[in-house]
Amino acid sequence: MKPFNQTFLLLTVTAACWLPACKPNNAATAVSGDAAAKAYVAPGKYDEFYNFVSGGFSGQLSVYGLPSGRLLRVIPVFSVDPEKGYGYSENSKGMLNTSHGFVPWDDLHHTELSQTNGEVDGRWVFANANNTPRVARVDLKTFRTAEIIELPNSAGNHSSPFITENTEYVVAGTRFSVPIGDNQDVPISSYKQNFKGSLSFISVDKGTGNMDIAFQLQTPGVNFDLSHAGKGPSHGWFFFSCYNSEQANTLLEVNASQRDKDFILAVNWKKAEEYLKAGKGVKKNVKYSRSRYDERSHMTKSEMLNEVTVLDPAVLKDICYFIPCPKSPHGCDVDPSGEYIVGSGKLAALVPVFSYTKIQKAIADKAYDGEFEGIPVIKYEAALYGEVQKPGLGPLHTEFDGKGNAYTSFFVSSEIVKWNIKELKVLDRVPTYYSIGHLCVPGGDSRKPNAKYVIAYNKITKDRYLPTGPELAQSAQLFDISGDKMQLILDFPTIGEPHYAQAIAADLVSKNSTKLYKIEENTNTYVTKGEKEAKVVREGNKVHVYATSIRSHFAPDNIEGVKVGDEVYFHVTNLEQDWDIPHGFAVKGANNAELLIMPGETQTLKWVPEKPGVYPFYCTDFCSALHQEMSGYIRVSAPGNNVPLSFSLGKTNDAEAVR
Amino acid sequence: MKPFNQTFLLLTVTAACWLPACKPNNAATAVSGDAAAKAYVAPGKYDEFYNFVSGGFSGQLSVYGLPSGRLLRVIPVFSVDPEKGYGYSENSKGMLNTSHGFVPWDDLHHTELSQTNGEVDGRWVFANANNTPRVARVDLKTFRTAEIIELPNSAGNHSSPFITENTEYVVAGTRFSVPIGDNQDVPISSYKQNFKGSLSFISVDKGTGNMDIAFQLQTPGVNFDLSHAGKGPSHGWFFFSCYNSEQANTLLEVNASQRDKDFILAVNWKKAEEYLKAGKGVKKNVKYSRSRYDERSHMTKSEMLNEVTVLDPAVLKDICYFIPCPKSPHGCDVDPSGEYIVGSGKLAALVPVFSYTKIQKAIADKAYDGEFEGIPVIKYEAALYGEVQKPGLGPLHTEFDGKGNAYTSFFVSSEIVKWNIKELKVLDRVPTYYSIGHLCVPGGDSRKPNAKYVIAYNKITKDRYLPTGPELAQSAQLFDISGDKMQLILDFPTIGEPHYAQAIAADLVSKNSTKLYKIEENTNTYVTKGEKEAKVVREGNKVHVYATSIRSHFAPDNIEGVKVGDEVYFHVTNLEQDWDIPHGFAVKGANNAELLIMPGETQTLKWVPEKPGVYPFYCTDFCSALHQEMSGYIRVSAPGNNVPLSFSLGKTNDAEAVR
Repeated sequence: MKPFNQTFLLLTVTAACWLPACKPNNAATAVSGDAAAKAYVAPGKYDEFYNFVSGGFSGQLSVYGLPSGRLLRVIPVFSVDPEKGYGYSENSKGMLNTSHGFVPWDDLHHTELSQTNGEVDGRWVFANANNTPRVARVDLKTFRTAEIIELPNSAGNHSSPFITENTEYVVAGTRFSVPIGDNQDVPISSYKQNFKGSLSFISVDKGTGNMDIAFQLQTPGVNFDLSHAGKGPSHGWFFFSCYNSEQANTLLEVNASQRDKDFILAVNWKKAEEYLKAGKGVKKNVKYSRSRYDERSHMTKSEMLNEVTVLDPAVLKDICYFIPCPKSPHGCDVDPSGEYIVGSGKLAALVPVFSYTKIQKAIADKAYDGEFEGIPVIKYEAALYGEVQKPGLGPLHTEFDGKGNAYTSFFVSSEIVKWNIKELKVLDRVPTYYSIGHLCVPGGDSRKPNAKYVIAYNKITKDRYLPTGPELAQSAQLFDISGDKMQLILDFPTIGEPHYAQAIAADLVSKNSTKLYKIEENTNTYVTKGEKEAKVVREGNKVHVYATSIRSHFAPDNIEGVKVGDEVYFHVTNLEQDWDIPHGFAVKGANNAELLIMPGETQTLKWVPEKPGVYPFYCTDFCSALHQEMSGYIRVSAPGNNVPLSFSLGKTNDAEAVR
Repeated sequence: MKPFNQTFLLLTVTAACWLPACKPNNAATAVSGDAAAKAYVAPGKYDEFYNFVSGGFSGQLSVYGLPSGRLLRVIPVFSVDPEKGYGYSENSKGMLNTSHGFVPWDDLHHTELSQTNGEVDGRWVFANANNTPRVARVDLKTFRTAEIIELPNSAGNHSSPFITENTEYVVAGTRFSVPIGDNQDVPISSYKQNFKGSLSFISVDKGTGNMDIAFQLQTPGVNFDLSHAGKGPSHGWFFFSCYNSEQANTLLEVNASQRDKDFILAVNWKKAEEYLKAGKGVKKNVKYSRSRYDERSHMTKSEMLNEVTVLDPAVLKDICYFIPCPKSPHGCDVDPSGEYIVGSGKLAALVPVFSYTKIQKAIADKAYDGEFEGIPVIKYEAALYGEVQKPGLGPLHTEFDGKGNAYTSFFVSSEIVKWNIKELKVLDRVPTYYSIGHLCVPGGDSRKPNAKYVIAYNKITKDRYLPTGPELAQSAQLFDISGDKMQLILDFPTIGEPHYAQAIAADLVSKNSTKLYKIEENTNTYVTKGEKEAKVVREGNKVHVYATSIRSHFAPDNIEGVKVGDEVYFHVTNLEQDWDIPHGFAVKGANNAELLIMPGETQTLKWVPEKPGVYPFYCTDFCSALHQEMSGYIRVSAPGNNVPLSFSLGKTNDAEAVR
């Protein structure tokens, strides 16, 4: 039994951190004189690293520069973004389709950079949606969401989107087990009989990055929390932490904290591939969406898929093994050598380190403590390399520096602890303000970390910044780890909740960055490649406006003959071919967001006018000295009115054709 | 006639700034050694100023700390914000009601802090919506949007939300003239006959801040751009810049750039008040929305209003006077003394400074150059104090330091120029990267500027930061102006487009900041003030879940008996009474955003389940060591199923009542 009283004790320790002794003035004294110079990036100079930070309950992904902590961009992923028209334009709204219909929001927890040979390669960054289970792929040439795939048989997709060392697979596991299959309308109290977990292995095409669900493993009904792939010698294996092996379905804070140990699930995915190839998978009838954005047509192709192949590891032996891990495991992290797997029990006061070699030996020796729902449970000691004793309270997550050291975040004692992996010895510790969750070393979960910094992503902000009413920004802290001791150099606030983040040396990404879309490569159905081709076409009650934008006018800019009851589609092509000259488009009263159209792009806004009148439209993104003049009018008449359809630019008397 | 060729020349100058000579390396050499120390705010230390920055096409308002440039909070105003559930929760979605229905987006251009005796007082910050004309008031105790009022008879609400020196009025003027009145379905080519502008004077209640449209002035059909109130001796007057006095309706970049001078409109609003009191206003039948958020009930009261009083200054003499101003005026700024009004023609190469005293004398002397649509046009020379000669190209906007100096932004020559108001002499100039729009000195449009910094809000970003694909963050630059010469100390990116911004000394706001909502003051209809009161109630096909959240569980956390076809309302009350302990709430598959519930608040999420099954819900905002365990299940059955309504917490066998 987990000593439940201790849990409350631990929480009390957290609470103590709000005493005056923890207040900013004291924290500031910990900052040494050269911190300002280390964090400062002079105007016009570039940051050294991109930091891809999960936006948590914002559903988006934020990109910060390090060491400055400056927010370079918010990439819309799982939530609509009215600023960019994401989820509102005809081009992008398909990205948020799911089997539940259009979903405007999600909870993005983790980011994971693609890898080649176990090193971050700067091609893509993946992200998971926790609420309506999905995985997204963001293209780092364009910093746009390129693909989102939904996960059937899943709920609470938390232990995701971690990858294998050549980005063969992105994984996704269920934090919440649910009834799966034909009859899902079962009593909640039948959890132990009816609720199951699943682990999805999503294949990633080497060239295009396109994702497919290669297979799913159906598992006992537990709560999978985090995961990491093996690497080097342990490539071919994946490790998932889980809690609630008690299989409680209510008051989990008590009922899922009963057992002294939950599990890490070791998955031999190469073995699973063998079974799959041998036809041992069962095809299940399901429903899930997949949406891909095409950067030539600037359109989303969204489709509903209806089949997934499921493997049952209780039947198909040698795929899965449970390893006991103390006190509600959270982080599950594999060191750069691939030999050591670090478990982090969030209610624990020690850190267990497992050995890949010993796990293999334990399996060969069948050093088991029985089974859990048909899956062997390896003896704790048989898998254990050793324990870090008294490292802190409430370890959550560990990253590595490639020099034999590990950095573990401790939520309850609110600190980062540096320790030596082989020796299991604590080397240094620094407080975090307040209550760190995850942390990040650039490349810190890869085979080759670039260990100049560690960043703390904290859960509680309180008095770290000027107050902003009841709601506060989330807080991150940057530490220099180039020396023996960690040095705090910067506090920076983040958008949404920064669950996990990854960082990469800037040049691996910046050298490939797309500056504009070539107009000659634009394959959008409604593209207008020159002002002379601008036109307005009626098809029944649909009116298609083929418009262009270029400094500083739209063509056409006077449109008449639209009727109440029409659906108007503004297809605006930005003819600019210069970097950072987007144009925006909005029309008064629209029940829609704007368009933000990059050079060479075509974007489409749907507008359903409800009253007769003359409606201005204008460019929403300041583009030139004559930006204020970049506007036009569209006249809407009553249904019975016989105003003919016409359009013009520069004709000051009557509305006539552009050409 | 405006020399149109010169316009293109000016644009060419802008383009020249992309030559290698302007690249970051050069910019960086302009930064002197102590810049890092000046911009750095050590971890745990507070910024000196709040900077309220318009989010432009994001529709939101961003709050930065200065001098660090750190983003402290994004306040949702005119666009939905899935991160906070703004526009999605039952509590907040009424805030985005308009006469056009629910509008999820707008283009927020300017921010204006409330003033008392001409000094910023830290009570409220106002903001304007440009696309679907509205004005918002944000409460600086809570950093939340407290009220939004729509503007009838308006389009392109740009010259807004500038205020009088005791916040008597917030103004709003039309950037786009439109047909107003009964028949709005008229040819666009009838602009000169049918299109009108309007200026709205919105009264602000001294105690509550509640806004009402006191009156509107109907004006000739021109494009109002910016405005500022008189102060001190000129209190009682308001000054609006306008362009397109050509009254063009197409290709405005050419056709609205024909005349050598457009206008500043001087409005004697105290005279207007007299006419209003004398019953000279005409009540017009219109339709516009007003929404107010109540922080006790945590609900929006949204109503549709249908009358506004309009004054006609062509008939009612002595309210309005036009003053000629060169080359498409943009900024219209009044110095701290109230005597000098600075016009900024965006295509000009000089800056005219008008004298309030001379304007009064010109009116007394009837020193007019005829009329423009019934409104007297004061002779340029009669109103002019003097011109700043050769200050730069394309002046846009001017703020003041209270020491007799003005700081003007120049878009075309991409610089800030400091000049002495009385002498009209240029004192200093610094380049901006690239193409500055507005600028801000803390309190820089008030009677008492706090002139430590000037911030440039730039329109073009290009190579200032690490590239992020075709779309780049917008760029701001911070200059120290405490000495004689301006010193660049920091580049910081912003959310959306930073049109205008205001800044205020931190303590004027921070001392009043609300930390939590008192649960005993919560008057929400669906509040649950203790866990024992949690319940689930069916009313026809509506199911009301009265739920509580407290570390680390929801009550109830097992709910059964919901049917497909039901509307489920989760009314979640956050029982916490500790700062910075929000809880989040989400349910799988919802076609809605999350709830983010501050301590003491009740928020409501509507969910319409579409398929039978068991759906997890969970806390989306990390709240404690046992946050991962803060979850529950709701069972949905087919319509014909007879599963009884039940709910429980901690009952592990059958779902029973919480109590």
